[in-house]
Amino acid sequence: MPKGGIMNPKQKILELLREEEPGYVSGEYICQQLQVSRTAIWKTIESLRSDGYDIEARPRLGYRLLTSPDILDPAEWQTDIKTHIIGQTVRYYKTTTSTNEVAKDLARQGITEGAIIITEEQSKGRGRLGRTWQCPPRTGLCFSVVLFPRANPMEVPQFTMLAAVAVVKALYRTLGLRAQVKWPNDVYIEGLKICGILAEMAAEADRVKYVVLGIGLNVNQSKEDLVCFGNTATSLRVQLGRTLLRSQILKVLLEELDNLYTLWQQEGFLPLKGLWRDNALWIGNKVQVSGLNSNYQGTMEGIDDGGALLLRLYDGTIKTFYSGEVSLRPANK
Amino acid sequence: MPKGGIMNPKQKILELLREEEPGYVSGEYICQQLQVSRTAIWKTIESLRSDGYDIEARPRLGYRLLTSPDILDPAEWQTDIKTHIIGQTVRYYKTTTSTNEVAKDLARQGITEGAIIITEEQSKGRGRLGRTWQCPPRTGLCFSVVLFPRANPMEVPQFTMLAAVAVVKALYRTLGLRAQVKWPNDVYIEGLKICGILAEMAAEADRVKYVVLGIGLNVNQSKEDLVCFGNTATSLRVQLGRTLLRSQILKVLLEELDNLYTLWQQEGFLPLKGLWRDNALWIGNKVQVSGLNSNYQGTMEGIDDGGALLLRLYDGTIKTFYSGEVSLRPANK
Repeated sequence: MPKGGIMNPKQKILELLREEEPGYVSGEYICQQLQVSRTAIWKTIESLRSDGYDIEARPRLGYRLLTSPDILDPAEWQTDIKTHIIGQTVRYYKTTTSTNEVAKDLARQGITEGAIIITEEQSKGRGRLGRTWQCPPRTGLCFSVVLFPRANPMEVPQFTMLAAVAVVKALYRTLGLRAQVKWPNDVYIEGLKICGILAEMAAEADRVKYVVLGIGLNVNQSKEDLVCFGNTATSLRVQLGRTLLRSQILKVLLEELDNLYTLWQQEGFLPLKGLWRDNALWIGNKVQVSGLNSNYQGTMEGIDDGGALLLRLYDGTIKTFYSGEVSLRPANK
Repeated sequence: MPKGGIMNPKQKILELLREEEPGYVSGEYICQQLQVSRTAIWKTIESLRSDGYDIEARPRLGYRLLTSPDILDPAEWQTDIKTHIIGQTVRYYKTTTSTNEVAKDLARQGITEGAIIITEEQSKGRGRLGRTWQCPPRTGLCFSVVLFPRANPMEVPQFTMLAAVAVVKALYRTLGLRAQVKWPNDVYIEGLKICGILAEMAAEADRVKYVVLGIGLNVNQSKEDLVCFGNTATSLRVQLGRTLLRSQILKVLLEELDNLYTLWQQEGFLPLKGLWRDNALWIGNKVQVSGLNSNYQGTMEGIDDGGALLLRLYDGTIKTFYSGEVSLRPANK
């Protein structure tokens, strides 16, 4: 439940309906619980229906919830979320420019740590290096988290790694899927990209003011929706052959983010680095690292505390790569 | 001269008066040059007078400039500045909140690289770690520079070092004063702080979007103005026993910043690190580095490429300190 336990009438009615699901809740009982008139209840039910909830009304029996829409409204998932920091404050938009842009504005204005900004549709979604990132409305899980970590700017890649590990854990916990983290900021399933992460910060030279972690997970995109990415992307729907309720994945993902952020606060990056390594794509394998004017081959060793890639060259020396410069792929056979 | 050579009538008239200083310029000649009426000239002269310029008008001889006010209006210094990037675009405010805040807004809106934001008075001046930083109107030299360097966030302390070296060079060139850089972000004269630098950035985890370099140099503050800093601060006026024209120092400082930023773009941090070291306070001396719960003594070795302080402990090992954590002072005798 959100801190302070304040729910709006929609959330409260949904909670009452879900407590009795698949049974009925009498209008009278709802009136007592909410302390409002039958007319007010009726209006709220109508409003829920226009949001996509299928609610049956039967004389003498009352109301019952038949199906819920696949929407990311906090009423769908915030009520019994088990987190301490992440997702206790939520800003939900049916459509927005880019959740990272909104999150940065709110961070500057001093929103609570752990606040998430979530939307059904981004008109200006972005990936790393200013690349555009798009998905059809209501298919992806797109949100941003605002953090105020006590950190040095050079430690910020740690949060990209943290988010990637949280996605891997959430996909395993909710769906039993084995995903892997791909350096620097993606999550892959069976060699295809399923999630991208974009960490942005405002900082002094030696002190982070805020970090905004943007996460874009492909959930219900069809094969056709993904054509624009060539043969490099997939979605949970494509992997599993069915559509999924995004709010359920979101809830678990926020819990994993909350656990891992707490771990970072208490023990630093070391345990996270281990988790990242345990789930990393191509670790110990021959890979190539390509830049604008360079191309190195070697064995992927892992990452350093700044999130830089460590490549063991064939002469045994270790070379460090920062993600801004290069891309990583398997070595040519 | 500003790029494109566009000057407003005030700037143009000042230029004409200065070309003939201390002689007269006829009203007729000014009319020809500006292609405007005698009445328009007169109004511009009146406006310059209200800005603090002392301009004499004599029948038959014309106008001459007696004295210029100590203001930072670009008309005072931009006309013949010799820079390629820094200070070609200027936003001048008689008063503002904080030049760094304005600069960050303008950087987000995509102002030209090298733009400077300058003011006579800050109502919300800030130093490192969110500390407030104040000086009486028209006494300090407070400005911010917007840069779009191709850099990793961990390299941003390099720009603090760059600015500190530029201040040292400008003070030597304009006044023959020997100042020193004090780790992490100050300039000292005779053991007292004369200048503070605040670098701020917006960045992705591995790529800087912009850096704003705020510089606050104590110029014409009296001893009384500095009392609030205890016995830790000084000004050029206190050091030299006379007031100075801030615009002259500004011009040279922008030229030094321009030289050093070009050097950084061409050769990276290595030559700047050398210059910083050559002018560093306490280098090779016994110092102590104090944190919240720690206190180390050793010999100050220098800095690394991330601007971190390198301290040689008495057992010979080198310890690295990031500036967010600690403060530096001479070791207790």
